[in-house]
Amino acid sequence: MISRLLLLVLFVNVAGCGTGSDQYDTSKMDLKPVPAKVSSERIKGAFASGASLSLGAELKPLDSSPIKDVRLDTTHKIIEIAPGVKFSAWTFGDQVPGPTVRARVGDKIRFTMTNRSDEMVPAVQLVAAPMMHSMDFHAAMVSPQGKYRSIAPGQTITFEFTLNYPGIFMYHCGTPMILEHIASGMYGAVVVEPRGGYPTKVDREYVIVQSEFYAKPDPGKRKIDGAPLYVLDGERLRASQPSYTVFNGAHNGMVGKPLPAKPGERVRLHVLNVGPSKTSSFHVVGTIFDRVWIEGNPDNQFRGMQTLLLGSSNSAIVEFMIPEAGSYIMVDHHFANASQGAIGLISTSAKAAEKELEHHNIPASMAPTDPDTVQGKLNFESKCLACHSVGQGRKLGPDVAGVTKRRPDVWLYKWMKAPEKMLETDAYAKAMLKEYNNIPMPNQNLSDAEIRQYIKYFHWIDSQPAGTTAVPGAH
Amino acid sequence: MISRLLLLVLFVNVAGCGTGSDQYDTSKMDLKPVPAKVSSERIKGAFASGASLSLGAELKPLDSSPIKDVRLDTTHKIIEIAPGVKFSAWTFGDQVPGPTVRARVGDKIRFTMTNRSDEMVPAVQLVAAPMMHSMDFHAAMVSPQGKYRSIAPGQTITFEFTLNYPGIFMYHCGTPMILEHIASGMYGAVVVEPRGGYPTKVDREYVIVQSEFYAKPDPGKRKIDGAPLYVLDGERLRASQPSYTVFNGAHNGMVGKPLPAKPGERVRLHVLNVGPSKTSSFHVVGTIFDRVWIEGNPDNQFRGMQTLLLGSSNSAIVEFMIPEAGSYIMVDHHFANASQGAIGLISTSAKAAEKELEHHNIPASMAPTDPDTVQGKLNFESKCLACHSVGQGRKLGPDVAGVTKRRPDVWLYKWMKAPEKMLETDAYAKAMLKEYNNIPMPNQNLSDAEIRQYIKYFHWIDSQPAGTTAVPGAH
Amino acid sequence: MISRLLLLVLFVNVAGCGTGSDQYDTSKMDLKPVPAKVSSERIKGAFASGASLSLGAELKPLDSSPIKDVRLDTTHKIIEIAPGVKFSAWTFGDQVPGPTVRARVGDKIRFTMTNRSDEMVPAVQLVAAPMMHSMDFHAAMVSPQGKYRSIAPGQTITFEFTLNYPGIFMYHCGTPMILEHIASGMYGAVVVEPRGGYPTKVDREYVIVQSEFYAKPDPGKRKIDGAPLYVLDGERLRASQPSYTVFNGAHNGMVGKPLPAKPGERVRLHVLNVGPSKTSSFHVVGTIFDRVWIEGNPDNQFRGMQTLLLGSSNSAIVEFMIPEAGSYIMVDHHFANASQGAIGLISTSAKAAEKELEHHNIPASMAPTDPDTVQGKLNFESKCLACHSVGQGRKLGPDVAGVTKRRPDVWLYKWMKAPEKMLETDAYAKAMLKEYNNIPMPNQNLSDAEIRQYIKYFHWIDSQPAGTTAVPGAH
Repeated sequence: MISRLLLLVLFVNVAGCGTGSDQYDTSKMDLKPVPAKVSSERIKGAFASGASLSLGAELKPLDSSPIKDVRLDTTHKIIEIAPGVKFSAWTFGDQVPGPTVRARVGDKIRFTMTNRSDEMVPAVQLVAAPMMHSMDFHAAMVSPQGKYRSIAPGQTITFEFTLNYPGIFMYHCGTPMILEHIASGMYGAVVVEPRGGYPTKVDREYVIVQSEFYAKPDPGKRKIDGAPLYVLDGERLRASQPSYTVFNGAHNGMVGKPLPAKPGERVRLHVLNVGPSKTSSFHVVGTIFDRVWIEGNPDNQFRGMQTLLLGSSNSAIVEFMIPEAGSYIMVDHHFANASQGAIGLISTSAKAAEKELEHHNIPASMAPTDPDTVQGKLNFESKCLACHSVGQGRKLGPDVAGVTKRRPDVWLYKWMKAPEKMLETDAYAKAMLKEYNNIPMPNQNLSDAEIRQYIKYFHWIDSQPAGTTAVPGAH
Repeated sequence: MISRLLLLVLFVNVAGCGTGSDQYDTSKMDLKPVPAKVSSERIKGAFASGASLSLGAELKPLDSSPIKDVRLDTTHKIIEIAPGVKFSAWTFGDQVPGPTVRARVGDKIRFTMTNRSDEMVPAVQLVAAPMMHSMDFHAAMVSPQGKYRSIAPGQTITFEFTLNYPGIFMYHCGTPMILEHIASGMYGAVVVEPRGGYPTKVDREYVIVQSEFYAKPDPGKRKIDGAPLYVLDGERLRASQPSYTVFNGAHNGMVGKPLPAKPGERVRLHVLNVGPSKTSSFHVVGTIFDRVWIEGNPDNQFRGMQTLLLGSSNSAIVEFMIPEAGSYIMVDHHFANASQGAIGLISTSAKAAEKELEHHNIPASMAPTDPDTVQGKLNFESKCLACHSVGQGRKLGPDVAGVTKRRPDVWLYKWMKAPEKMLETDAYAKAMLKEYNNIPMPNQNLSDAEIRQYIKYFHWIDSQPAGTTAVPGAH
Repeated sequence: MISRLLLLVLFVNVAGCGTGSDQYDTSKMDLKPVPAKVSSERIKGAFASGASLSLGAELKPLDSSPIKDVRLDTTHKIIEIAPGVKFSAWTFGDQVPGPTVRARVGDKIRFTMTNRSDEMVPAVQLVAAPMMHSMDFHAAMVSPQGKYRSIAPGQTITFEFTLNYPGIFMYHCGTPMILEHIASGMYGAVVVEPRGGYPTKVDREYVIVQSEFYAKPDPGKRKIDGAPLYVLDGERLRASQPSYTVFNGAHNGMVGKPLPAKPGERVRLHVLNVGPSKTSSFHVVGTIFDRVWIEGNPDNQFRGMQTLLLGSSNSAIVEFMIPEAGSYIMVDHHFANASQGAIGLISTSAKAAEKELEHHNIPASMAPTDPDTVQGKLNFESKCLACHSVGQGRKLGPDVAGVTKRRPDVWLYKWMKAPEKMLETDAYAKAMLKEYNNIPMPNQNLSDAEIRQYIKYFHWIDSQPAGTTAVPGAH
């Protein structure tokens, strides 16, 4: 009697920590999906619908229905991926990333998608012509030829599948050239809970989707609302040299609007690295991941991690404590990626305070539109705010507001190019060194192109109404 | 009595799932290998031999002998890494990748290798001069200075070692400049089963070796059988910018000849990422990895993964179900790599059907030899087949067969460069738009060089006998 | 009675292998750190102090004190990252990488740092101007805005925190532009043991820190002790294209001075990949990792690995046996990285013997200073030593010492550019082929720039006193 009881306990234990192993019994899985249907019926109305969808970083609680009706239409749209950078994107549900689907092992997804890439959007039509699109759900176990087939503009596809494994699964367009469809914005996440839920309780749940953009100013110099249009840079794309790496679709995503949390709370992030081509070394400054569940499955558990490496189309759940009041900074610790915009905040205060600016790039206030000026602004904000403010007075170095009125361009050029030489020969430079406690301006090894961009940015600042372009320095 | 029985059960459990922990008792491992022998005896005959060897993707069952005699000679050889791309390679066993060795923990490998890089091969001799080579087995625990020493052309080395750990282990040439020896093709896999076998039963076993090629047309413009020779591109190699990323040695490896499997079957892939310098984000479209054993060792288990990240010289076993009839596409989900050829099929039909073309690049039929034309063909097949066929009639857009007879080159250039401008001003373009349901040609942001390559490819098509160059479009 | 006993055993088992799960009870963790203090007091004396610090690869035993006083001041310093490459670095504790802190879960770190980047160092001042710096400990759970704030030159910050998780944690400067601060050398490791120690016993413990350098000759052509100065290459940095990838701060780190170990010993490496932007595929030639503890935590265990993939700011403990006498070569098996210097030795002999040179790049003897010559030397040592020596006599090919006296530069250029053509037409080349057993020189596909660098290096050799530049070939 005793022995039977104990053996039962043992059996459960052998089955592994977490969620129970019978969920992996492939003989009980639904592996016989019904065929997809394609029609020429064009569905109108909202581009995305379904009770299981979350549109932003905040993840809605699980909808209890065992059948999830999900509709995600494809559209072509201009989105702003960084301040002043209006990019010609292709979308699911008219947003990048697409909405997040939340469901549970055993649930069925009934999916509908109309290819609406041909619907008239002012200015967009000429930029991104209608084209074939499709849907590939990594959460499904189905024949790609049936369910993931490409449909033409105006067509609608419907198919369904059962969720067999817990995890965070990518979805994306699978129409060739797939690389371009993903890089243009066609991706999102499906969060599948274990049948019995997660083994931990948390206070907050967010979705973080990392992805790369490969953007260049339109060679045809077209404009959107007066601002220059950016299009896909095929050369950078094929060489895996992104121009922006971002969270949730935007440069410095969630810096301007941090994700809220309170001291002492436990936070769960559902992290998906879309790629399309790079790894992410995900880290949150100021805390340690108590648990990491690789691919979002509690059976794949690590403890006490500082950083999590994810390949393209890899995912994980990370959970951690918020130790004290402050802003905890999400970054890709491949820091060249962080410098391209893969930065976001989880903050105990409603909005990012000035002090929080120290440890990350700065959200934009007013934005220029000329590409060089935009680049100058981005570089300045990531590189110079440690010592300079814009219109907020002197810090370790002078306020740059008004600098184009104080010094001629040629002087600014020489100064940025080789401050150490100017300090030997130029009277103004020498006086400035004295005024600023003998802390010289470091040589930043700038290229001529970079210096031109800075000077353009300074001129733009000085051409705006006073105060509108202010950016506080870090100190 | 009862308690003893139960404690025994517990002990087994504590020892970990899978293969039992005593296999890791380092005090019982063979760590005293006998010295290697190098002789000037030149062995003739087959370049590879041994009952434990598998030459292709299909993995032969375990040979039961506890001692595995393995012979892998080094050769220099011209191999075709992509349609029309004849590359000057260095090999083990006269193939790239080299043969796969299969063995079991406790088995002994008795290895022999003759450096036959100096044997006369027509045309090859001048391309790749004889040189030093060596063998580095990651499966062995031996002094590199003894066993992995370089031998000169005509020399033979023999050494032996015992397999102490289960896993999938890389082998490669370890002669400086190692990077170049690996990039030239000198690698393969050793599959070592746990002493007691694997804890699961599967229906199919395959070996997938991912690797990068860094190829450029020979600066000396030499030819092989009338086709241009490609040689190692040292600049790309050092910058980790591959020109091809492939499975089992060939661009779109196993697309033309898919690996067979049946609906409901369980498939085990032994995956090795050779590199030499990049990570792989391995994924199979249409299914989910039921089990992943990192480095091929069942003790390192993950469940329910969509994608698996592997560094250079990392490996894993992945197992998954084939849910229904169809073709399941292996890709590196670092999609810039997939676009370079890291694509293959596991299919329930004997050969890839037309429909399967939708989700991947297309196997070549007839192949051009001029490098620009080859590139144009590759680009066309990965990028344009969603909407165009070659000689198979109209799809979403026109059939490109005959296009050079219908339109002059200058028109084709303008059209590919800026279709949206042509649609505003050119009568032919306007008429075509109308004929094709007002779905305009998208601007692909092509460089002038790319457009030239497309036009060369179109001319090549139109110079061939009708029908010989046909490639079906996806729709 | 029996059943209770057994259930107790079961409970321990459920708690997981290794270090016990109560260490993860977040309700017992110290998550209420006291505020940091910043003062204008300038502390003098040693740049680093603390009983818990190890300055080099050898890791000192754990200091038993529950409170670890750690002082790491920031300095600006010229360091030699490769033979002849004097780089303008920023440091913690006046070395790159900074000292390693060793502690245990539950210990408290009391940290002090003075920003001494403004202290006069001959020649350095003008190169790297004083600037703001800060400290970000991945081992801490604290608000980044409080503890990781930037301090100005001359200021001192102090803060404390408790170690809640075991692992190997990165520390680095967190002042924008963070990417540049890390790339300039501001990083190190904190090793935190589990509360009850590690579950294995080892004979040796070392710390291996991998990092990238992005260096270019100073555009201003400044010199340090007569040698050219190298500065941060911002363009390469942002494009993630390092010029050197190294272990413990130096090209071919620990090749000249191998880490000692004896046959039969068990070695534990604490490996941290700093990045700032690349992954590492860490491997030791000639052995297999018996255990791998991801992030340095025994609860995250893998067995029998050949290679370990680490993202930027990822770490791991690897343990392995030294099977027999020899030199075991640590490499980043992303071999383009190994070729940039990510190579080191663990050797059973006091110093690297000649034979050991076979499997890796070669430590420098005398070093040139001209950047082209330096590059030529590095390329030669990684690429040509398989067949040539410098001043050590003939090997498979001729000794290159004296080659500029034997042949004119134009001949050397033609020979390296296209040896196969010279062998058809040039009498000297034909005679040499005959003399060297008809083994021709391989075409290395060198660029003109590379050939120029080789020729410069050969001239440098021939301008030095005989014997001072000798480098043995591999065979």
